[in-house]
Amino acid sequence: MTKVLMKGNEALGEAAIRAGCVHFFGYPITPQTEIPEYLVKRLRDVDGVFLQAESEVAAIHMIYGAAGVGVKCLTSSSSPGISLMAEGMSYIAACELPCVVINIMRAGPGLGGVLPAQSDYFQATRGHGHGDYQVLTLAPASVQEAVDLMMLAFELAEKYRNPVMVCADGMIGQMMEPVEFPTEGRGPPLGENKWALTGHEGRARRVVNSLFLDPEENLAHNLRLKAKYDRMAEEEPRFEIYGDADKCDVLVTAFGTMARICKSAVDEVRAEGVRAALFRPITLNPFPYGALRDAMDALSPKGRVLDVEMSMGQMLLDVRLAAEGSRPIDFLGTAGGIVPAPEEVAARIREVQKAVRPKRKPGKKKPAARARKRTT
Amino acid sequence: MTKVLMKGNEALGEAAIRAGCVHFFGYPITPQTEIPEYLVKRLRDVDGVFLQAESEVAAIHMIYGAAGVGVKCLTSSSSPGISLMAEGMSYIAACELPCVVINIMRAGPGLGGVLPAQSDYFQATRGHGHGDYQVLTLAPASVQEAVDLMMLAFELAEKYRNPVMVCADGMIGQMMEPVEFPTEGRGPPLGENKWALTGHEGRARRVVNSLFLDPEENLAHNLRLKAKYDRMAEEEPRFEIYGDADKCDVLVTAFGTMARICKSAVDEVRAEGVRAALFRPITLNPFPYGALRDAMDALSPKGRVLDVEMSMGQMLLDVRLAAEGSRPIDFLGTAGGIVPAPEEVAARIREVQKAVRPKRKPGKKKPAARARKRTT
Amino acid sequence: MTKVLMKGNEALGEAAIRAGCVHFFGYPITPQTEIPEYLVKRLRDVDGVFLQAESEVAAIHMIYGAAGVGVKCLTSSSSPGISLMAEGMSYIAACELPCVVINIMRAGPGLGGVLPAQSDYFQATRGHGHGDYQVLTLAPASVQEAVDLMMLAFELAEKYRNPVMVCADGMIGQMMEPVEFPTEGRGPPLGENKWALTGHEGRARRVVNSLFLDPEENLAHNLRLKAKYDRMAEEEPRFEIYGDADKCDVLVTAFGTMARICKSAVDEVRAEGVRAALFRPITLNPFPYGALRDAMDALSPKGRVLDVEMSMGQMLLDVRLAAEGSRPIDFLGTAGGIVPAPEEVAARIREVQKAVRPKRKPGKKKPAARARKRTT
Amino acid sequence: MTKVLMKGNEALGEAAIRAGCVHFFGYPITPQTEIPEYLVKRLRDVDGVFLQAESEVAAIHMIYGAAGVGVKCLTSSSSPGISLMAEGMSYIAACELPCVVINIMRAGPGLGGVLPAQSDYFQATRGHGHGDYQVLTLAPASVQEAVDLMMLAFELAEKYRNPVMVCADGMIGQMMEPVEFPTEGRGPPLGENKWALTGHEGRARRVVNSLFLDPEENLAHNLRLKAKYDRMAEEEPRFEIYGDADKCDVLVTAFGTMARICKSAVDEVRAEGVRAALFRPITLNPFPYGALRDAMDALSPKGRVLDVEMSMGQMLLDVRLAAEGSRPIDFLGTAGGIVPAPEEVAARIREVQKAVRPKRKPGKKKPAARARKRTT
Repeated sequence: MTKVLMKGNEALGEAAIRAGCVHFFGYPITPQTEIPEYLVKRLRDVDGVFLQAESEVAAIHMIYGAAGVGVKCLTSSSSPGISLMAEGMSYIAACELPCVVINIMRAGPGLGGVLPAQSDYFQATRGHGHGDYQVLTLAPASVQEAVDLMMLAFELAEKYRNPVMVCADGMIGQMMEPVEFPTEGRGPPLGENKWALTGHEGRARRVVNSLFLDPEENLAHNLRLKAKYDRMAEEEPRFEIYGDADKCDVLVTAFGTMARICKSAVDEVRAEGVRAALFRPITLNPFPYGALRDAMDALSPKGRVLDVEMSMGQMLLDVRLAAEGSRPIDFLGTAGGIVPAPEEVAARIREVQKAVRPKRKPGKKKPAARARKRTT
Repeated sequence: MTKVLMKGNEALGEAAIRAGCVHFFGYPITPQTEIPEYLVKRLRDVDGVFLQAESEVAAIHMIYGAAGVGVKCLTSSSSPGISLMAEGMSYIAACELPCVVINIMRAGPGLGGVLPAQSDYFQATRGHGHGDYQVLTLAPASVQEAVDLMMLAFELAEKYRNPVMVCADGMIGQMMEPVEFPTEGRGPPLGENKWALTGHEGRARRVVNSLFLDPEENLAHNLRLKAKYDRMAEEEPRFEIYGDADKCDVLVTAFGTMARICKSAVDEVRAEGVRAALFRPITLNPFPYGALRDAMDALSPKGRVLDVEMSMGQMLLDVRLAAEGSRPIDFLGTAGGIVPAPEEVAARIREVQKAVRPKRKPGKKKPAARARKRTT
Repeated sequence: MTKVLMKGNEALGEAAIRAGCVHFFGYPITPQTEIPEYLVKRLRDVDGVFLQAESEVAAIHMIYGAAGVGVKCLTSSSSPGISLMAEGMSYIAACELPCVVINIMRAGPGLGGVLPAQSDYFQATRGHGHGDYQVLTLAPASVQEAVDLMMLAFELAEKYRNPVMVCADGMIGQMMEPVEFPTEGRGPPLGENKWALTGHEGRARRVVNSLFLDPEENLAHNLRLKAKYDRMAEEEPRFEIYGDADKCDVLVTAFGTMARICKSAVDEVRAEGVRAALFRPITLNPFPYGALRDAMDALSPKGRVLDVEMSMGQMLLDVRLAAEGSRPIDFLGTAGGIVPAPEEVAARIREVQKAVRPKRKPGKKKPAARARKRTT
Repeated sequence: MTKVLMKGNEALGEAAIRAGCVHFFGYPITPQTEIPEYLVKRLRDVDGVFLQAESEVAAIHMIYGAAGVGVKCLTSSSSPGISLMAEGMSYIAACELPCVVINIMRAGPGLGGVLPAQSDYFQATRGHGHGDYQVLTLAPASVQEAVDLMMLAFELAEKYRNPVMVCADGMIGQMMEPVEFPTEGRGPPLGENKWALTGHEGRARRVVNSLFLDPEENLAHNLRLKAKYDRMAEEEPRFEIYGDADKCDVLVTAFGTMARICKSAVDEVRAEGVRAALFRPITLNPFPYGALRDAMDALSPKGRVLDVEMSMGQMLLDVRLAAEGSRPIDFLGTAGGIVPAPEEVAARIREVQKAVRPKRKPGKKKPAARARKRTT
């Protein structure tokens, strides 16, 4: 395997093909338009179908149809367009169909702006559409990881018969990095299964349905879904710890583009002797609560958590759920497409560290015990 | 004021008129169709406008337009229809326009069924549309409260220039109860303001906009919104405590229809000597975290929380955020339109109470330490 | 009544109000946008409703609904937007509901251009939507006539319970002329009738329907419609003859803006002694076949017809149907928004006249008979 | 080539494949749903694309897109659905793109009924969309002819770069007849051309456009289109004469299903000695005016024309244009899905014949002059 230099959006498109995706339905919106642009050409090479729908509402329902007949399919959009897919997502999840949805998040709410943001975290992990359903959500922090998570996305979609969302932002979408693809050519079609509507000749009819007027049936269906989501929560949490959390004073939590910047910040402060580490969820849903709690528990006795997001505080809620009050949680957020510089994050880490180990005022005697600890 | 016997859905419609609502836009969907049916007639009496739109997508954008010119307006739908409004809701919140949205929740996900459910809690309180925005959410537990919260909804919408959602279910929508309306006739129009697009003759032009391509402006806009949401979280949480939580063994948490049933269950077990109380959030967003934590803190030393929802566990997350690990939280959930009977909830309360105060097995000596603790 | 100077598009809007129109539904498109712009303000004054729909498809179906409940309503669009109304128009005509539709024709086909054209003649008079139905079509040639025909349009719509179209172009829409309105203030609502769905309390239910699955019923319905259209063809043809057709050599046929220019051309050539006259249909449907044939029959023995249109030849077909081969018909057409100058038309009239009375070649003897005729 | 027994709708679908059609976009509507049903399976075999769009508006615009990139494509609908395609058809014709549209006409207007009718003749031949454009229209009278005309439709669409409509009704759609296909397997793709948007690498960019804001350009475009339509009118009229028109007393005109029934009626009356023949236009647009006039001119001196349609009289207008007053034209029409029996048509032919050769009343002397004429 050789590395090729690719833009994030194009790499996402190519990765879909390598994963076996043959149908794309979507509607153009900045800053993700290079994905459909790439696929409109590439899908032709692999005898696939590219269709620009009338709207995002139409696109997600075409995904619903294609997924129902067992076709590996993808849609891609950006924040407002993803909002328009809320109903369709609920239907697809309810019908237990596999598909992949990319959200290259822009700065909302409303029309907002086209610059990078992470303010669709709640939407991706909770409450987009109606009813009790879950979407597996993956958040890459580099172009190579975008490729790897796209491959994983199609795999998990099929494994769980569930929509999988890949959440990134314009920074990853526009950035060029060398990537390598784990496979050659167009990936394989869906494996054998007992649910796709492929024509019932010679076998019993199959049904794709989300309507259960009988409450007992509806309950049974919801319990079946719940069991599946519990299994996901058990088996699928993925995360990265950057720097050893053990006895750290500051544990930074961040995902995607923001996590990448936090790494530089962590490097910067560690060079100065500040004990900081980064916990990066790769799966936003299921969120790696257990692993994060473990990392928190490993911190120094007064260690604190600093959650950093390009939002007004959304993942923060999951960080607090993991902490259950065991650690103070600080927050650094932004909005509007403004991506904080590593220096800004580093400055904040230092502040948090000062709260953990306040400097003695001049003239005050240095407590012996604490000093020892530091020199260990 | 005299009481009249009304069906919940109709009372919601009449309350809107009494609050001054003059425009309704929507699209029919069971189990909320009596609301538009009632309003199509009543709005004519008050020189209002009723319009059945092409779809829920169209309806919410008509609301967007009407709200923008300073008209008190309402839309109403049920779960899948509300999903279709995700993009519009984000735009309306981003533009800081007042409107009221009713969701008579049905059993999802997907088409689901038309019976009562509470599985749109996440959608109502988080992540429906894209971007950092909040919707004030009110959850009535009786027809009278539905009326009162509708009046409040229009008041808060105007106060905060923000969409307000009233979340109920088919049980409240279909149930007949005597209600009284606090006012007579059609309510007043919007008060004087500096934002509605009423024609700029003789004054500077006003702008309704959610597009901020300049990141600094976009950030400033988001910070302004955030400050507003913080103010809501400060001033607007509403709740009811049924039974005194003080030294209780079991604190039931539930909202809406489910809370009503839990009251009967609490009555039932209290008659048997079980110390149980109910905490009912009236505002789902902002959630009354502080009040709930206070109630939890007042419980008996080993007291536990039992969260009861007609969902697979959504408000549960807010209950856990309030608890921060301070109390064990049990859960009783359902789905599919099945409304648990008071007896079922009572049985579960008893179980939880047994976990708090396990019965000694016959012949086993009562541990001295624990006895002491109890008498403290 | 005093005259006011108004732009054609605004005069059309005001005339609708004077005729009693209280609801407008539409979607913006050049060159008719001044009509909705005018009405959005004026309808507020008269407690009416203005609603910008999601699309022209939505707008015409809102007209369908409003007309069905007995509200005087108007929509307005330009060529491509009118195309989108084809299905709705067929439904409204089939249900026998009154409404008025304005088409400010632009240069087609496709997106075309926004300049004046008359190439939607076929669409207005035949085959827009499916099935056997007819739309009464009126074509004003001045701003005052635009006003008068709008008043008539609402009158005929109610009389025949049928859609009426007013066809003009950007020239009439943009031109300013002094107009007077025959009535003051908002016109009266629809008169008493037995079909509008106004609530069935105290009377038998009424039905608005175009579905007749039983073929005998469907046939009966079509025959009833046909009888109505025959009555229209009997009672409603309107036309103007400019200049006396009697013994003329050239009868120009033209409608709307084009007819206005042809009048100047006719004046010009008559001043030179050419016997020319203009026949102007005011109702394009029903077309004044009888009156046109009478005018043709009155021409000089070799008299010819010159049809002039801002199209490639559409009304031409009705002129030929009127002639039934009795007269040669010449054609002068244009497209693309180019409005021929009077001089251009005059030049063509002279050519046609030469075909009627060819000049003797020098040295050739003048035929006595013809000379006599001329001097008669 | 062997004959296979096929239903008309399926034969239409198969014929499209044999003609090289690889993309189908549509929306279901009775009585044409067997066409998409057949194609959804067959297109898979030939690596084609079948997509059910959100609506007929969406479908025709997908056709617009597919045709623009040089893909042989088909849509199919029935009357109300065809109405929704009016705008798109105008765009496609304006952009000079090839595509085929099937209309299995049902009884209109409005929802009407699903039984056979011919009342979309005007729509197919005039005025569906806006602007000066023409659609080539073919009307089969048997399943075999449906196949042959589908092959021709794709050929003409490509030859003229213009939409071609195949108009039939539920009778032909549902009827089973043995058919043979002139070719095997999937037909060839579009031939080499200079307009399809296939990627501009290595050549100058091509443009598909219908917007011409400059009036001179717009005029030039319209004149180019007009020249093309004139060429069609010259080269493409197709018709069938059944029975020799020479010295006939009655010339029946009819198309499609109705013509088939008229043949039986002509057979019936000819067996009795009545001189009758049938003129059947195969191309409704361009209409075979010249051939029909020739047939009329060949009739016996007092010979009359009887136009028979399953409409209130639409093709009648083209028959009158052909006649130019040279022959009396009688009309037998129906509606609502009622297909006249051969006996009914035969009875009417006899009546018309009586008008041509009135029987002397018994005892009355035969008028000498007329007798002479007859024997001439």
